[in-house]
Amino acid sequence: MEEEEEGSMKWNFKGDEIMKKASSWTIRTILKTLIANLKGADDPTRPVIQLAHGDPSVFPSFRPSKVLEDGLIEAVQSAKFNCYGPSNGIPQARRAVAEYLSKNQQLEVSVDDVHLTAGGRHAIDVLLTALAHPGANILLPKPGYPFYEARATFSRLEIRHYDLLGEQAWEVDLHHVETLADKSTVAIVITNPGNPCGNVYTYEHLQKIAETARKHGFLVIADEAYANLDFGSTPFVSMQHFGSIVPVLSLGSLSKRWMLPGWRVGWIVITDPNGILQKYGILDSIKSCLDISPDPATCIQAAIPKILNIPEDFYSRTLHLLREAVDISYDRLREIPCFTCPYKPGGGMFIMVKLNLSLLEGIIDDMDFCLKLAGEESVTLLPGVAMGLKNWLRLTFAVELSSLQDGLQRIRAFCLRHEKKL
Amino acid sequence: MEEEEEGSMKWNFKGDEIMKKASSWTIRTILKTLIANLKGADDPTRPVIQLAHGDPSVFPSFRPSKVLEDGLIEAVQSAKFNCYGPSNGIPQARRAVAEYLSKNQQLEVSVDDVHLTAGGRHAIDVLLTALAHPGANILLPKPGYPFYEARATFSRLEIRHYDLLGEQAWEVDLHHVETLADKSTVAIVITNPGNPCGNVYTYEHLQKIAETARKHGFLVIADEAYANLDFGSTPFVSMQHFGSIVPVLSLGSLSKRWMLPGWRVGWIVITDPNGILQKYGILDSIKSCLDISPDPATCIQAAIPKILNIPEDFYSRTLHLLREAVDISYDRLREIPCFTCPYKPGGGMFIMVKLNLSLLEGIIDDMDFCLKLAGEESVTLLPGVAMGLKNWLRLTFAVELSSLQDGLQRIRAFCLRHEKKL
Repeated sequence: MEEEEEGSMKWNFKGDEIMKKASSWTIRTILKTLIANLKGADDPTRPVIQLAHGDPSVFPSFRPSKVLEDGLIEAVQSAKFNCYGPSNGIPQARRAVAEYLSKNQQLEVSVDDVHLTAGGRHAIDVLLTALAHPGANILLPKPGYPFYEARATFSRLEIRHYDLLGEQAWEVDLHHVETLADKSTVAIVITNPGNPCGNVYTYEHLQKIAETARKHGFLVIADEAYANLDFGSTPFVSMQHFGSIVPVLSLGSLSKRWMLPGWRVGWIVITDPNGILQKYGILDSIKSCLDISPDPATCIQAAIPKILNIPEDFYSRTLHLLREAVDISYDRLREIPCFTCPYKPGGGMFIMVKLNLSLLEGIIDDMDFCLKLAGEESVTLLPGVAMGLKNWLRLTFAVELSSLQDGLQRIRAFCLRHEKKL
Repeated sequence: MEEEEEGSMKWNFKGDEIMKKASSWTIRTILKTLIANLKGADDPTRPVIQLAHGDPSVFPSFRPSKVLEDGLIEAVQSAKFNCYGPSNGIPQARRAVAEYLSKNQQLEVSVDDVHLTAGGRHAIDVLLTALAHPGANILLPKPGYPFYEARATFSRLEIRHYDLLGEQAWEVDLHHVETLADKSTVAIVITNPGNPCGNVYTYEHLQKIAETARKHGFLVIADEAYANLDFGSTPFVSMQHFGSIVPVLSLGSLSKRWMLPGWRVGWIVITDPNGILQKYGILDSIKSCLDISPDPATCIQAAIPKILNIPEDFYSRTLHLLREAVDISYDRLREIPCFTCPYKPGGGMFIMVKLNLSLLEGIIDDMDFCLKLAGEESVTLLPGVAMGLKNWLRLTFAVELSSLQDGLQRIRAFCLRHEKKL
């Protein structure tokens, strides 16, 4: 093909702007920039410490139990699970999730209410796709997990951000919610335990959220990906307890409690004892969406009964590690003058820190802070702008303890070096 | 919640019709109806024989090689692949696919041109999503694999069906294509080797398709999920050979040649030596779409290098089985008076049979035929209506040989029993 000929040719196809806009919300884009800015990747005396994103599965302390691995290996060796599965998961896996949730939260979850997805993100994809219709809007937390913004943008769901209150244990600002909601509001998303805030909501707060949603006629999407990773004074309570007040679509996954994000299994649980979602066609939309979207690998699904019945000490070991890590993080971060840390996380894997730029020299904003930190100290933190909260920082403490301590020390050194001279 | 109170409550959300319409295209819906109609599920002397859908992985003859299983088991035991992966796949897996395709088709596929997906269907999802924009239309084969119709409907891509010519080895009716294409046509989909027709296109025919596409300014989506499952006189040639004529988006998967549909790994390969897709923003759209959609499990990705380098005898064994199965199927089906079989498949796993209703008593159409067959003989066939060709039937021959023979005999008995008495 000659260049001239190619140059004059007009093709009919073109890229879609909405897709670009949707994907620009994802953390992945910012992470790529940060990682490109990392120094010291080749310096063995000063290894890179990634505190920007939460994936403890790469650290020896969080290596999954052999029980989890054996579950998958048995499924593979049986050669029974190489086949296609049903669009919402194989029955034994869905039953195992229903039984696990029932036992864990003293609920009565039926197998019919559980639908497997190809990871927690895919559950978000399915729910937002099923709820989208022209003119609809959705209430998302600020700060929040930006994959919701990405999928809402893709589905043309109007995004309305409500505030989380840092000084009130990152509770939902219900007054703000009341001012945002209207007759086109289809859902509110809450993340509990929280990403990025580490909040764990009380029973009373969850009930108030349910009542507010009911008052305005929208449902609750409860992102419980971090369920049971609570280690503070407030125990985790599932939003599913409030299904008689408001229909609840909750989601979970193997990624956090079982530290298997790469296995790509999540689930949607429908809590709707009054049958409202069936009546309004949402249940059919969810099922239709599952019919035309990817499934988790069948062999991994087959391992779920074994995974969810792992002995308790696996869980308590993780909680012990996280509790130790959050204690250290909170104490060290509070000692750094340019940081404010309004809340010590009671769950999850992240802590939010407010940046006081007036105490720093030559740092423009949170993104600039993170880029320079990566360049000078080989440490990554996620700038708050990625989660809708400019000039904040998100740090994951779910890393190897020695790395965490080293990372915190380097962050401190960086801050002191850039301190404004008075 | 009292019933009365619940009855008067008005909620803001509602299901979306487009989703229902999209999922109604999938084979899954029809399969469920057929399976519900099956008798004899509990009769050990007369087991159910499913010839409606293609999933040989459940049969002992097609049990995957231990080499494939070992690849995954090693990846799991290493505990290195429990983590999140990049949105288009881990580099070593993408490289293995690039090397495999290069060697297999004497091409030069770069790792940058390969993007992993959560199965072949997900590749279709990504490509159609990336190409959709208001007013665009897409050319789909009739008969075809209806997941394309499902995803096109969801993405609001206008569907225009072009005919495949049963009497000409199911080639693309290029005259028909010419009458359908206009300035809003963004792509043509071809399936080679074909599902449901078993066609294997010649080099010359593929070249003509490429030239027609170029003439009208649209690209080619080449569904090569059944690549190298060719056992007739025409060898499989990848559409990738024609990338200098027209940009080609081809797709493949582990589901067919390696019989691992439940592992949920597919790939998109970009063949565009003139950089047209980059220039027109399609490449960015594909990458953005991958950023916000599910990934295949990381541990399964890690097994890909081993899977794609399995010794050749694995492949030849499969081809031998399929060749034997298609010989038997073609011969037996042609002996049945109410069937016409215009083409003996040269590849894939399916054969298409035309139903002559005038020779049958009390059978209304293809769906009726399949429902009664399931009820009376415990055998499933897929009605042509599912693939856009009313009063045809699709049979998969990729099943255990003894089951195939038994199934063909029962189909024959059914037809003779329902023959019109002259």
